[in-house]
Amino acid sequence: MSEVRRDIVTDTWVIVDTENDTIPQVPQEEVKAHGCPFCEGQEDRTPNEIYAIRDGSSPNKPGWKVRVIPNIRPILKVEGELEKVGIGVYDMVSGVGANEVIVETPHHMTNFSELPDEQIQLVLDTYQKRIEDLHKDKRLRYILLFKNHGRAAGASTIDHSHSDLIALPATPVRVKQKLSGALEYYSYKERCIFCDIIQQEIEMADRLIFQSDKFAVIAPYASRFPFEMLIIPKRHCYAYKLVDKSEIKDLANSLKTLLRTIHKVLKDPPYNLVLNDSPNLLPRSNYWKTIQQDYHWHIEIIPRLYRTSGFELGTGFYINHYAPEKAASILRSSI
Amino acid sequence: MSEVRRDIVTDTWVIVDTENDTIPQVPQEEVKAHGCPFCEGQEDRTPNEIYAIRDGSSPNKPGWKVRVIPNIRPILKVEGELEKVGIGVYDMVSGVGANEVIVETPHHMTNFSELPDEQIQLVLDTYQKRIEDLHKDKRLRYILLFKNHGRAAGASTIDHSHSDLIALPATPVRVKQKLSGALEYYSYKERCIFCDIIQQEIEMADRLIFQSDKFAVIAPYASRFPFEMLIIPKRHCYAYKLVDKSEIKDLANSLKTLLRTIHKVLKDPPYNLVLNDSPNLLPRSNYWKTIQQDYHWHIEIIPRLYRTSGFELGTGFYINHYAPEKAASILRSSI
Repeated sequence: MSEVRRDIVTDTWVIVDTENDTIPQVPQEEVKAHGCPFCEGQEDRTPNEIYAIRDGSSPNKPGWKVRVIPNIRPILKVEGELEKVGIGVYDMVSGVGANEVIVETPHHMTNFSELPDEQIQLVLDTYQKRIEDLHKDKRLRYILLFKNHGRAAGASTIDHSHSDLIALPATPVRVKQKLSGALEYYSYKERCIFCDIIQQEIEMADRLIFQSDKFAVIAPYASRFPFEMLIIPKRHCYAYKLVDKSEIKDLANSLKTLLRTIHKVLKDPPYNLVLNDSPNLLPRSNYWKTIQQDYHWHIEIIPRLYRTSGFELGTGFYINHYAPEKAASILRSSI
Repeated sequence: MSEVRRDIVTDTWVIVDTENDTIPQVPQEEVKAHGCPFCEGQEDRTPNEIYAIRDGSSPNKPGWKVRVIPNIRPILKVEGELEKVGIGVYDMVSGVGANEVIVETPHHMTNFSELPDEQIQLVLDTYQKRIEDLHKDKRLRYILLFKNHGRAAGASTIDHSHSDLIALPATPVRVKQKLSGALEYYSYKERCIFCDIIQQEIEMADRLIFQSDKFAVIAPYASRFPFEMLIIPKRHCYAYKLVDKSEIKDLANSLKTLLRTIHKVLKDPPYNLVLNDSPNLLPRSNYWKTIQQDYHWHIEIIPRLYRTSGFELGTGFYINHYAPEKAASILRSSI
């Protein structure tokens, strides 16, 4: 079991793997394991599935379209009581949570943007299904869905297209910052900060990469990284589970358009994709009052073209060597 | 000139280089430039020095022990007014600041831990001198001193041992988190949170790597990264500029001991070293009241053995695959 520890000074939580005894090495390219365990027909090489989209075929057999399995080396485990323990001045929560893998296609494809639109829709549907299911477990405070593409973006050696899900027993500090920033703005203006950003970006247009019927795709004003991108629904909506069928369809198309464009412009860059959703349980009760009004779910995509240094680690202050207006302009003309 | 932009939702600041037109590439090992511009005798290949420790020799000539020069490609510039501008919903500050390089030895040495003790003392003295000087400029809110060792830690292609200094016109979010965490604890307990941590770590001893007369060297309870280390003065002191000669001498020795040990155990790992000092100007006036009592300067050292993924970027929640107790135990037995 791991421990979830809180840095009391910065309110940063860390999952500490207390069982591992192997000293980590400086990352190097690893030799790929023989054959891909995520391909259709290899179901017996993975743990039993949690969820799958199937047309009547049996669980853990071929005949699926999207398949969700537990991570084979889970960092958090579903079993066990959620214990909160004080260790002198420190706080600790037991390593209760979930760590799942969403296998996005039965075929061996390594690039999410090459999946057919309908397949991407099924993946986005699956995100909703897993969030809905895990939200029932009130030990879990936040469900994080993300994708790591490429080794430099922290992806595993399995290159078969997949997303990761981690359900956490504590609210992450960046989520708290966003909730708190959104609440502060709402308290002052009685408007959603994200809705105001969307309106301004569509009007100014210099950081707008494109807009579809239901989404705006933006290079954020204070992008931390070159070619950072934001996909945000035009309709005010605080939680991903409330997204409707027509929005999923539009999102699948917008996501594919964007990822194909960066694949072309940046030559298949490593990237991270993160779904920024509302928490399951809120860290402080005052957030509850207005979260439906003040929060607005969104997706961040960050190409990993830059190595963070001591500057970023020490400060949370970033240096971005490529202006978002220029990134937006290049992407806009390459769609 | 660059712009310093604020992410209004998360209060994260980003220095945006608005002049660069080169699209960043995925990092690759670069070919080293011919000869080292930081070596003694190569002074004409760097901008004019800002400060140097010399025994009577002329500026920008050989005969120095430590030399501080402006970064040849500064991301912030000393000249210009500090302007704060609202861009619709956004906040921007002009790119006023300083970006200096501290060349730590006249000889071509690439490993800080191999410098003689006396030379490390001169470097640590120089940190103080630069902080004192830059604190006079009230446009500058925070002076960050840090070291990147190795390309994977974000170091430049110049491998001659050096530190970096960035003086910022806005307070970094991680610094604010620390100030705020320290203030909250002090308000409740009327004690310094760092002093309590030092006391507990020395008593428990399982995360204590070593202690000298004046410093404790600890693997932090909630280490974000494997083998993360904290060097903290036992004497309560909120600002690095107040450190005395005997502490500098002890710090030089402790730092050297620690860096030689990780060099041996982790085989010359890439790492970042960050001096966590008090700000020059405080972001909110209520921090002023007790900062001398509640804040406590310290140094963080982070070996870069792990690639951050979408999980860390999206949440500020970390996964650490090697328990700090184990790291401390190995380092303790290898000193």
